[in-house]
Amino acid sequence: MDAPMINHRGPEFKALLKELEDGLRWAFQTSHDVLVFPASGTGGLESVVANLVSPGERILAVSIGAFGDRFADCAAAFGAHVVRHAVPWGEAADPDDVDQILADEPEIRTVLITHNETSTGVTNPLRELARVVKGRGRLLAIDGVSSIGSIDLPVDAWDVDVAVTASQKGWMSPPGVTMLSVGPAAWERRATAQAPRFYFDWERAHKMQQNGATFTTPALSVLFGLREALRMMREETLPAIFRRHLQIAASFRAAVEALDLRLVAAPAAVSPTVTAVYFPEELQGDLAKAVFATWRERYGLIVAGGQGQLTGRIFRLGHMGAVSPDDVLAAVDALQRGLADHGYGVQPGIAVDAAQRALAEPETALAS
Amino acid sequence: MDAPMINHRGPEFKALLKELEDGLRWAFQTSHDVLVFPASGTGGLESVVANLVSPGERILAVSIGAFGDRFADCAAAFGAHVVRHAVPWGEAADPDDVDQILADEPEIRTVLITHNETSTGVTNPLRELARVVKGRGRLLAIDGVSSIGSIDLPVDAWDVDVAVTASQKGWMSPPGVTMLSVGPAAWERRATAQAPRFYFDWERAHKMQQNGATFTTPALSVLFGLREALRMMREETLPAIFRRHLQIAASFRAAVEALDLRLVAAPAAVSPTVTAVYFPEELQGDLAKAVFATWRERYGLIVAGGQGQLTGRIFRLGHMGAVSPDDVLAAVDALQRGLADHGYGVQPGIAVDAAQRALAEPETALAS
Repeated sequence: MDAPMINHRGPEFKALLKELEDGLRWAFQTSHDVLVFPASGTGGLESVVANLVSPGERILAVSIGAFGDRFADCAAAFGAHVVRHAVPWGEAADPDDVDQILADEPEIRTVLITHNETSTGVTNPLRELARVVKGRGRLLAIDGVSSIGSIDLPVDAWDVDVAVTASQKGWMSPPGVTMLSVGPAAWERRATAQAPRFYFDWERAHKMQQNGATFTTPALSVLFGLREALRMMREETLPAIFRRHLQIAASFRAAVEALDLRLVAAPAAVSPTVTAVYFPEELQGDLAKAVFATWRERYGLIVAGGQGQLTGRIFRLGHMGAVSPDDVLAAVDALQRGLADHGYGVQPGIAVDAAQRALAEPETALAS
Repeated sequence: MDAPMINHRGPEFKALLKELEDGLRWAFQTSHDVLVFPASGTGGLESVVANLVSPGERILAVSIGAFGDRFADCAAAFGAHVVRHAVPWGEAADPDDVDQILADEPEIRTVLITHNETSTGVTNPLRELARVVKGRGRLLAIDGVSSIGSIDLPVDAWDVDVAVTASQKGWMSPPGVTMLSVGPAAWERRATAQAPRFYFDWERAHKMQQNGATFTTPALSVLFGLREALRMMREETLPAIFRRHLQIAASFRAAVEALDLRLVAAPAAVSPTVTAVYFPEELQGDLAKAVFATWRERYGLIVAGGQGQLTGRIFRLGHMGAVSPDDVLAAVDALQRGLADHGYGVQPGIAVDAAQRALAEPETALAS
């Protein structure tokens, strides 16, 4: 990534962009156009809104947490009349509910859904949700920021019109680039959508990419990282990557269970990339801050806190991208020690043992 | 820049952001708020439009080249009625002309101006332009992408309401981050401006930055680079940096003159950061492509081509940020050799000699 900069209007960049486009199509499992923008994942979501929505139009936002709310807020900021289907945090969306809303609301032409919600550690049943949305003939745009490249999302097979991700998630690169796929129905909608767009205009981006360049200056160092990440991912293969994520998530959950802690996610909806866990009652609130500090300062373990309504109540473990079984064991050990330092007593070593057992029994783990 | 990623909601990031904000205020010579977004410079320009403009509003865009046109196009895309003051490419804007337009158009409340136009190698007389715009009581937003940190732009002293730059220019870092200053009058305007905004919303960004974080995931690796760049810049001091750019630009121009080539920029408007030069008549058009290839492949010299109406007619030398006198001499030597390989005959070594003389006589060079 610290290779010297190259001319982003020259032949070296053209070759880089071609390799990235091919790699992303492979990872998205799509023949759709793929676009890259210098932006975080939220920028990719804004591009969906700016290119597909018209002010005053009714759209459906299925939200199962903070990032679902963000997608909906963005659409509202661009003038859409957003019908919010907000599911209690910790649960996944029910395809039957979405089907009913779409049946009741024939005017809704576009549906926004989060595939994997990092604020709650929940993964939506996207295959079923997509079947419902497409069955009703609506356009489907997916926030796949924390799923694509880590959790199976075959864009073409599931008929997903737009799918968005970002470089810092499963792609093992620093943040700064958002990548998305745009299918034919989305291109068609774009032609009539009225929201203003310039920086995130898909058409400008697409025209430039067809000529081997980008509309604005690309985030080169991040793209260098992404190129290498895609090569590594091709070596590992997608089925192996998805399986590794499932296995590692299962081992984290085994550790959480051994620690007698409760997941935020309902059992059927647990995420393969993020595990969100309630603190023990007695450590919630202000005390949680001290536990985060202990994890960070004494054990070098960076754990994310809760967002929105879950602030001070939960901790979240991200495990997407470059994560190995050894990382799990080290993290789980530090996790238990930090909790113990604050008086949460469970038999020493029990979390690591449970994680290790889960890692050793992949079949059981994947079924759990 | 390839340091491990850090939690962008944690104390390490808070310290990084504080250092960046202090450093940027120093380099922008301002006490205004400074904001950072993961985006290219065009994203920073879009943030100006999204936060300051209301659909249907008349605004003035002073354009002296491709990037001025881009700023105007962005405002038009967001629904502004853009009054375009387009100056012939190669010239700077005349403050008297701008004053007259503003006198004739009392409804115009906002003026967009490019400080340094990289498509033509022209720098606008911004101090005088700012005096005119502010004298008429209008809001002034500056595209300082290729100037701030390389060319003197004292934001507070010149009463500039918004100034935008990007990490890959004078800041010696990879592309991917745009930085801008927002003054009190711009904040006031934002409160009533009606264009839609979410990703680039200054208010969301500002609120988060006050708490030591960013609204969306920051482009960490680029920010690591920017931190180091700001430390280097503080060591060199702003006057020395500005002087170095003036001197290096003067030496490039001396070489161009020795080669009997013509600058795109009018003499009074030459840029300290980009030198744009017409190819000899006989090498314009398709042959120019071959010259670029020779420079790149035989001499390792990456030279930018012309944009828009200047495509195939000019070449552009960027010399902002980490550029030393040795770089100039190596570039100038390669430049002459590449032209010679395509039959453009001038006495060998004459360009390097001229550049060297200009570097050795800083006082003369700066006055030229």
